[in-house]
Amino acid sequence: MSTRVIVWGEFLQEKSQPEVAAIYPDGMHETIAAALRREPDFTVDTACLGQPEHGMSRERLAATDVLVWWGHRAHAEIPDEIVDRLQGRVLEGMGLIVLHSGHYSKIFTRLMGTSCSLKWRVSGDRERLWNTAPKHPITAGIGDHFDLPAEEMYGEPFDVPAPDEVIFISWFSGGEVFRSGATWQRGRGRVFYFRPGHETHPTYHDANVQRVIANAIRWAGPDATRRPRRSRPAFHG
Amino acid sequence: MSTRVIVWGEFLQEKSQPEVAAIYPDGMHETIAAALRREPDFTVDTACLGQPEHGMSRERLAATDVLVWWGHRAHAEIPDEIVDRLQGRVLEGMGLIVLHSGHYSKIFTRLMGTSCSLKWRVSGDRERLWNTAPKHPITAGIGDHFDLPAEEMYGEPFDVPAPDEVIFISWFSGGEVFRSGATWQRGRGRVFYFRPGHETHPTYHDANVQRVIANAIRWAGPDATRRPRRSRPAFHG
Amino acid sequence: MSTRVIVWGEFLQEKSQPEVAAIYPDGMHETIAAALRREPDFTVDTACLGQPEHGMSRERLAATDVLVWWGHRAHAEIPDEIVDRLQGRVLEGMGLIVLHSGHYSKIFTRLMGTSCSLKWRVSGDRERLWNTAPKHPITAGIGDHFDLPAEEMYGEPFDVPAPDEVIFISWFSGGEVFRSGATWQRGRGRVFYFRPGHETHPTYHDANVQRVIANAIRWAGPDATRRPRRSRPAFHG
Amino acid sequence: MSTRVIVWGEFLQEKSQPEVAAIYPDGMHETIAAALRREPDFTVDTACLGQPEHGMSRERLAATDVLVWWGHRAHAEIPDEIVDRLQGRVLEGMGLIVLHSGHYSKIFTRLMGTSCSLKWRVSGDRERLWNTAPKHPITAGIGDHFDLPAEEMYGEPFDVPAPDEVIFISWFSGGEVFRSGATWQRGRGRVFYFRPGHETHPTYHDANVQRVIANAIRWAGPDATRRPRRSRPAFHG
Repeated sequence: MSTRVIVWGEFLQEKSQPEVAAIYPDGMHETIAAALRREPDFTVDTACLGQPEHGMSRERLAATDVLVWWGHRAHAEIPDEIVDRLQGRVLEGMGLIVLHSGHYSKIFTRLMGTSCSLKWRVSGDRERLWNTAPKHPITAGIGDHFDLPAEEMYGEPFDVPAPDEVIFISWFSGGEVFRSGATWQRGRGRVFYFRPGHETHPTYHDANVQRVIANAIRWAGPDATRRPRRSRPAFHG
Repeated sequence: MSTRVIVWGEFLQEKSQPEVAAIYPDGMHETIAAALRREPDFTVDTACLGQPEHGMSRERLAATDVLVWWGHRAHAEIPDEIVDRLQGRVLEGMGLIVLHSGHYSKIFTRLMGTSCSLKWRVSGDRERLWNTAPKHPITAGIGDHFDLPAEEMYGEPFDVPAPDEVIFISWFSGGEVFRSGATWQRGRGRVFYFRPGHETHPTYHDANVQRVIANAIRWAGPDATRRPRRSRPAFHG
Repeated sequence: MSTRVIVWGEFLQEKSQPEVAAIYPDGMHETIAAALRREPDFTVDTACLGQPEHGMSRERLAATDVLVWWGHRAHAEIPDEIVDRLQGRVLEGMGLIVLHSGHYSKIFTRLMGTSCSLKWRVSGDRERLWNTAPKHPITAGIGDHFDLPAEEMYGEPFDVPAPDEVIFISWFSGGEVFRSGATWQRGRGRVFYFRPGHETHPTYHDANVQRVIANAIRWAGPDATRRPRRSRPAFHG
Repeated sequence: MSTRVIVWGEFLQEKSQPEVAAIYPDGMHETIAAALRREPDFTVDTACLGQPEHGMSRERLAATDVLVWWGHRAHAEIPDEIVDRLQGRVLEGMGLIVLHSGHYSKIFTRLMGTSCSLKWRVSGDRERLWNTAPKHPITAGIGDHFDLPAEEMYGEPFDVPAPDEVIFISWFSGGEVFRSGATWQRGRGRVFYFRPGHETHPTYHDANVQRVIANAIRWAGPDATRRPRRSRPAFHG
């Protein structure tokens, strides 16, 4: 059974900023989705700001296992009733992967209960992500670290509740650190925040970043170990 | 320096239900506050639903170190802008002690990000609270357990984020268990949820319950260890 | 690929106490193993105290994914060099399921770093295990609680480090509670402690208990989501 | 009532390596102790390898509230019965502050249950410690970060159980990160690991490092909030 994924993108700066369009001509969500479509166990769709109900209708969400969210400029445009709906689905068990500037999205701050503020600097720093959870499903196939040659800096303190698990800690060439991958359980839903992905850098074309997102979807999706298994008949039991 | 405490009570059922009025003639908040006023290091005030701004003006909150909250019937009557204000103060460092049916208050669900639902039964069960954090400041002076002869039952699952610390687990004579005392850090603020206190039982007259609330206020209040200390002059150093 | 399981049992009281032999004629480990052998994805073997190297040779452990451990009277008879070996394998990634009186085994106290003491009473109490992690792989197929008609009582405080996850909390008819299912990561290995299983009760014949142990083995074993997946060829990547 | 502190130092390299002696002529433990002696609420003593019972007699430990430990070359020389004794005192409530290369001390690995391995490089890297717990007692008086101009590098992964709290994350100029300050509760005792302090650098002369150690002693010592308080007489109770 396939894991049903929606990648949600704001899709604003790709249309208004030529340097973003040059990297993501069809939008960041389509670049992310294209990588995920190569995974045989996923069914991948996309949604954007400005679509009817911003692409988040009740019917669609009911048929979604994991939602991937990238937003930046237009967090305030998502109406509270859609945020209620998203939160309801997470508490019921839908996985949620929040990317980069999505730390300030309404759905993420709603689920965290804190400001989710952080330090930042648009700088083109070199970022090195250290794997602090080498046995975790989210780091499958990832070595002890990987580098992104240029990224926006995000620094501590990151005002979130203590994560259940810290998966990556980033080092920035300018002198900062950040808990760049972290998990939280909310109701029956699993939430993963993953830091990289500033719109002016080709981060979502990076193979390691793509792999982490795919791994996180598997981790947050319907649990394979919970699916019914056929047992041999039990004559003695 | 005194810890400035406000005890907030809905103060509805004490006026409309004679069996509640018999136990708490001046309101539950006044019973709780009277016990706290015997602590030499606290300055204690009360506030109620229906006062101007429900007793939660910006000025008052700015001068409050720890807020104790009991609500039940009228959670929906607290306007969102007051909830924003309360959340802001917690993130800045105000302590928050949420009692009993306050699990469904807007401020608690806001800070948790989950439904905060639980099982319940108005039953007069015997409740035994087991101390699962014997070295924690909140259990100072509390033995390995204490009993309440009759209480409403609250049972697991309790839909909250994994607590930072589980302080008490309750046993109910009807067969349930509940994480009855639990802590969460949110921003710079400390949050403690404490289960007991159904309005038809004299729970806030109980010495152990009073002691736990006082301990929790000290734990959530301005940290004594952070206050400046005078040092001896450092000739060699 | 099959998960390779060893069930280790002390196998002493089954030979010396007729009331234990009546319930577990071939030993508790064989009853546990028989249930696990019905799972199509497991290869199950057993080992006992008194075998060469107590059945825990370097070669065997190297070929084991998950070890299930029941001990009671003879913890002290396991030499420290075998405990070193077990610990080494857990830190490398072998799963470990510790049952009941195994809380005092050398390998469990070694991995915890604490005394692992608890309250207890041989009583035939009714035990009700509440599921406090309804979405966790270990509770797959388990409802919100299940009962054991008669068990030894274990009560809090349980002197272990704060668990990563509390999976079950037990209620006992005599008035106690206990964190009966709990997880800890140690190195690359996952550890699950599961309380039930006093030797004079038929607990390991119980279908829910068997299911929890099987689920825990899947959770602690090689992670299915980490196995290599074949991807469609990536023309655009 | 004073908090009774012992600072334990190996005191070997200060005698055999001139470059260490130049920085710490009386030993690192005496430099650390001298700073702590300026705190009016501490009574500070020191102990060293090679003293009778390595300075850790039963009587002395019974009269110690917090033990600070620096070791490097001679971990293996501490006999297991002294480690048992130290562990016993921590479980009873003695605080333990483990410094730098003490991550491999017998008492720390005993309490952790893991290998406590990490990456390292003797390099004179610049180290920047980021404060990830701005409200924690251990960071009182510490800003959002502080720098050490030259230190040995320690890098992730650090093979310890998930800390209860991560207090500092270090950035190293060579490209690594490390959880440099972390806490764990073990029994009734509080444990703090603090990374800085390579013997060839003047780290324990640094005012921020001294302050963190003093703060950690207060946090790990007898809890001020648990001391009996005199209450006003309760006429109405």
